[in-house]
Amino acid sequence: MNPDACTVILTCRAVRHFTDQPVPERDLRRILEAGRWTGSAKNVQPWHFLVVRARETLDQLAQCGRYASHLRGAAAVVVLVTSPGTWVDFDAGRAAQNMMLAAWSLGLGSCIASLHEADRARGLLKVPKAFQTRIAISFGYPLKDAAQTIEGRPREEILASIGRRPLGELVHWDTW
Amino acid sequence: MNPDACTVILTCRAVRHFTDQPVPERDLRRILEAGRWTGSAKNVQPWHFLVVRARETLDQLAQCGRYASHLRGAAAVVVLVTSPGTWVDFDAGRAAQNMMLAAWSLGLGSCIASLHEADRARGLLKVPKAFQTRIAISFGYPLKDAAQTIEGRPREEILASIGRRPLGELVHWDTW
Repeated sequence: MNPDACTVILTCRAVRHFTDQPVPERDLRRILEAGRWTGSAKNVQPWHFLVVRARETLDQLAQCGRYASHLRGAAAVVVLVTSPGTWVDFDAGRAAQNMMLAAWSLGLGSCIASLHEADRARGLLKVPKAFQTRIAISFGYPLKDAAQTIEGRPREEILASIGRRPLGELVHWDTW
Repeated sequence: MNPDACTVILTCRAVRHFTDQPVPERDLRRILEAGRWTGSAKNVQPWHFLVVRARETLDQLAQCGRYASHLRGAAAVVVLVTSPGTWVDFDAGRAAQNMMLAAWSLGLGSCIASLHEADRARGLLKVPKAFQTRIAISFGYPLKDAAQTIEGRPREEILASIGRRPLGELVHWDTW
């Protein structure tokens, strides 16, 4: 199955509940390649990708963010290890999106976790202090019929909205 | 032509030189839909998309960033109008990547411009002060055999590197 890019982009949704099935090494490398080829300001590529699959480490990572429990059940987690800089967050978002879309096209779900306790995560992963570890992405095969919950609560209690605003509310032509 | 997602992700490159051919309205709407469906922290969707095609406005926008002259020759520019917030830059990067990939899958090139003079851009576009206008994306059909220049200079003088670092330099397994 090689779904076309626009279909993948339009259908990709956050997945927080995963099966126990491991991610094939080949697919994990495809996801990392997708991250690697991401464009960045002046092509600085201000990132490393730290892959975590050890169950104990995932369990501890899941405690480093307020909505990060989905990391615990992931088949693999990629921590975005970034260098500080003005455009780094923006570029890290581009890399995350590339990896999540590649995963989705391979039948894998993913979800971003903000690591509010980034220093704790950095220590856990033995990342040098020159880098930041504020973002982790869980990957795994979506658990079918999983409850649409976040931290055990109905997602409507956590999210600002469900679905997306219509284009008519978002788009302006020529000026505001 | 419906290229598969991984191919689109791995081949997408910044394009700074465009032909005069306009972007079909249908494709422009596909690009905007790709932006619209982007995930964001708590699904806040902290963005508006301001589409600019008027030649005079593009000319002025191109003066709002130090490396923004590619906006001048674009068939269309999307300004990311964002609300301030901790994760907004990261989420804006995700939306930008979705739009650039959708464009690439449709045969269109794109390039991000940092609008260093964001307030000037905001005024030009009549965007309310509650929003930020720091990022614009040019879209258009790639000009074949265009010189690989940035602001008229060889790109090697501007970019930190050409190509991408190999996975072996980027990826760490389990800990750093």
